[in-house]
Amino acid sequence: MASESSDMTLKAIGVVRRGETTSDIVINHDLTEALDNLEEFSHIIVLYWMHQVAGQPPTKVRPRGRRELPEVGVFASRSPNRPNPVGKATVRLLQRQGNILKVEGLDAIDGTPVIDIKPYIPGYDSVTDAKAPSWITNR
Amino acid sequence: MASESSDMTLKAIGVVRRGETTSDIVINHDLTEALDNLEEFSHIIVLYWMHQVAGQPPTKVRPRGRRELPEVGVFASRSPNRPNPVGKATVRLLQRQGNILKVEGLDAIDGTPVIDIKPYIPGYDSVTDAKAPSWITNR
Repeated sequence: MASESSDMTLKAIGVVRRGETTSDIVINHDLTEALDNLEEFSHIIVLYWMHQVAGQPPTKVRPRGRRELPEVGVFASRSPNRPNPVGKATVRLLQRQGNILKVEGLDAIDGTPVIDIKPYIPGYDSVTDAKAPSWITNR
Repeated sequence: MASESSDMTLKAIGVVRRGETTSDIVINHDLTEALDNLEEFSHIIVLYWMHQVAGQPPTKVRPRGRRELPEVGVFASRSPNRPNPVGKATVRLLQRQGNILKVEGLDAIDGTPVIDIKPYIPGYDSVTDAKAPSWITNR
């Protein structure tokens, strides 16, 4: 199955520096110009490597680790312990200063390697009529 | 910068099989049960490896390759030619049959390696007040 995927090795493009209420995403200096125009967007998508997850990922998990909830397939969950531990977050971009992005709402621990930044495009990244079961939406 | 990201190698969990108007995502057989409960969601997030992209990624790109538009930083674009060629699509899940997901609106070529499937969670993955510049929203 993986025959067409010769080499899928990621490079860290930056790192998360966690603050009290906001986080800084510190992008590698050689990629500073690749951030140009990002400040025209109110929100960005951050892909990151959940590097603290260890061990063989389970096939089934309990949503948000809650023991009263039935197990579901790991691809039906947002558990960090998955075959490829890549996290995806949509966050508000508060400020860009050179190679540093200040964001709100990034649920990634300090030191998390960042692998991609994408602009959030309303209509392309959002769905108006999406349905989801209550076990995942009742937060 | 990459000191905390020891080994970031992805494994293909499946592959895109492109149809006329829909696509099938064929997940590796050993991960079939990891898809359980995904059919309770109307939309899913697909992360995939844009394996046909070659060469050193540029720092700046023209949005959607349009020559009349000014260059922007690659992280302010959705260009597939980026430091880590990971694509992210939000698509409608039409059907799950065993290890096969039939989806609508996946703009990935036939044979694309899939690296993650996540449920789309309204409110978590969507933003109601997001702003984006006209050069990216005018499609």
